[in-house]
Amino acid sequence: MHKLVLMRHGESQWNLENRFTGWTDVDLTETGRQQAWQAGELLKSQGFEFDLAYSSVLKRAIRTLWIALDALGAMYTPIGLSWRLNERHYGALQGLNKAETAAKFGDEQVLIWRRAYAIAPDPLALDDPRHPSHDRRYAKIAADKLPATECLKDTVARVIPFWNESIAPAIRAGRRVLVAAHGNSLRALIKHLDGISDDDIVHLNIPTGQPLVYELDDELRPIRHYYLGDPDEIAAAVAAVAAQGKAAK
Amino acid sequence: MHKLVLMRHGESQWNLENRFTGWTDVDLTETGRQQAWQAGELLKSQGFEFDLAYSSVLKRAIRTLWIALDALGAMYTPIGLSWRLNERHYGALQGLNKAETAAKFGDEQVLIWRRAYAIAPDPLALDDPRHPSHDRRYAKIAADKLPATECLKDTVARVIPFWNESIAPAIRAGRRVLVAAHGNSLRALIKHLDGISDDDIVHLNIPTGQPLVYELDDELRPIRHYYLGDPDEIAAAVAAVAAQGKAAK
Repeated sequence: MHKLVLMRHGESQWNLENRFTGWTDVDLTETGRQQAWQAGELLKSQGFEFDLAYSSVLKRAIRTLWIALDALGAMYTPIGLSWRLNERHYGALQGLNKAETAAKFGDEQVLIWRRAYAIAPDPLALDDPRHPSHDRRYAKIAADKLPATECLKDTVARVIPFWNESIAPAIRAGRRVLVAAHGNSLRALIKHLDGISDDDIVHLNIPTGQPLVYELDDELRPIRHYYLGDPDEIAAAVAAVAAQGKAAK
Repeated sequence: MHKLVLMRHGESQWNLENRFTGWTDVDLTETGRQQAWQAGELLKSQGFEFDLAYSSVLKRAIRTLWIALDALGAMYTPIGLSWRLNERHYGALQGLNKAETAAKFGDEQVLIWRRAYAIAPDPLALDDPRHPSHDRRYAKIAADKLPATECLKDTVARVIPFWNESIAPAIRAGRRVLVAAHGNSLRALIKHLDGISDDDIVHLNIPTGQPLVYELDDELRPIRHYYLGDPDEIAAAVAAVAAQGKAAK
């Protein structure tokens, strides 16, 4: 039996400001840092050890991982970074306040972008400074792979190859893996692991900074999964994430 | 022409307490963290960018690297970790205050351990809790490779394979590399790069937290090297490191 731990990054500055973040490289708030530390301490108190960790290339996930590994007393854990674990790219919405966006495009349109599995917001223009082709961390990625917007379906399509080619083989080889990522890249992974439908996955809310443990069999099929933290705290954190959606109305 | 940047970790708690550290996993002091941040800012102000970074598996080097990459705005830089970049293993001296050690073993003996190229202190016993075989980060290293004490010659012997097999090929492939390591693992690397004699290398003092730039030709032979920081500050930092040696008397 393998144990895989997934962790959504702690609260970021734009979570707080209720803005569409996507690939914008926003940092954690002080609360987010505390969440990451508590997650690491919780893992440590339950005897978790990791041989390998993964993160997106966005600093809110990397810092969450760094802080958690520090709290675990295991800063020496190798970290694999990949753009494929990045948050869903939110296209032209990136940077906009969710309430402003609703005022600009209408509530209904925003809900579609947020909750439809296969409908993406308008893409960033190639000459938009926010387009990832202007960021050197993506310099080695083929232009046709680099998103300028994504729906959740697109996010799934680029997360799963990384699972298949990197994370899954490491777990099969017996390595104990911790993944720090984002609401939608984790949705993508969980959709794949648990076989969740396109319609249902958009309603799955993952709380920030809470270690989510997946027990997997030898074929990497989930046996069960559970959050490590206090159930009341988890329920409150899930409700807070769900309520973020409503703030756009 | 390639540029390689070497950086000794910032001040650690045991630098401050003047104790033999070796493989003991001591953290940075607040001053050490500031040094690391300043090093990153200095690199950034000079336009340095890195494709790849390396560190030992000791937290004072890892934290120095993390902080410097944060200051550089490049937390997404991949990091390769290796025990081969660890500080010289100081055997049974680890944890002892340098003055206490002099009182116990005599000034002359301590000077020999500190300054002779090929004479190691007594090894840690296998059942000593400080022996690296009890630390899970070294679990995959063959028992005959895992040191229980080292002279500088031993450190050179395990650092250079990592240079040859990992760092040098990356540089040859055009990757811009930053290495965060320790006084003696950097001595080992510099001895190799500059062809410094066994007698001379022990007198090379490397200041903490100061980026040291090596310009290398296509054969990775040094063209020149220089510290990035203010020359007066560097001279003071080198003098401070040299004076640490005298504190053992």
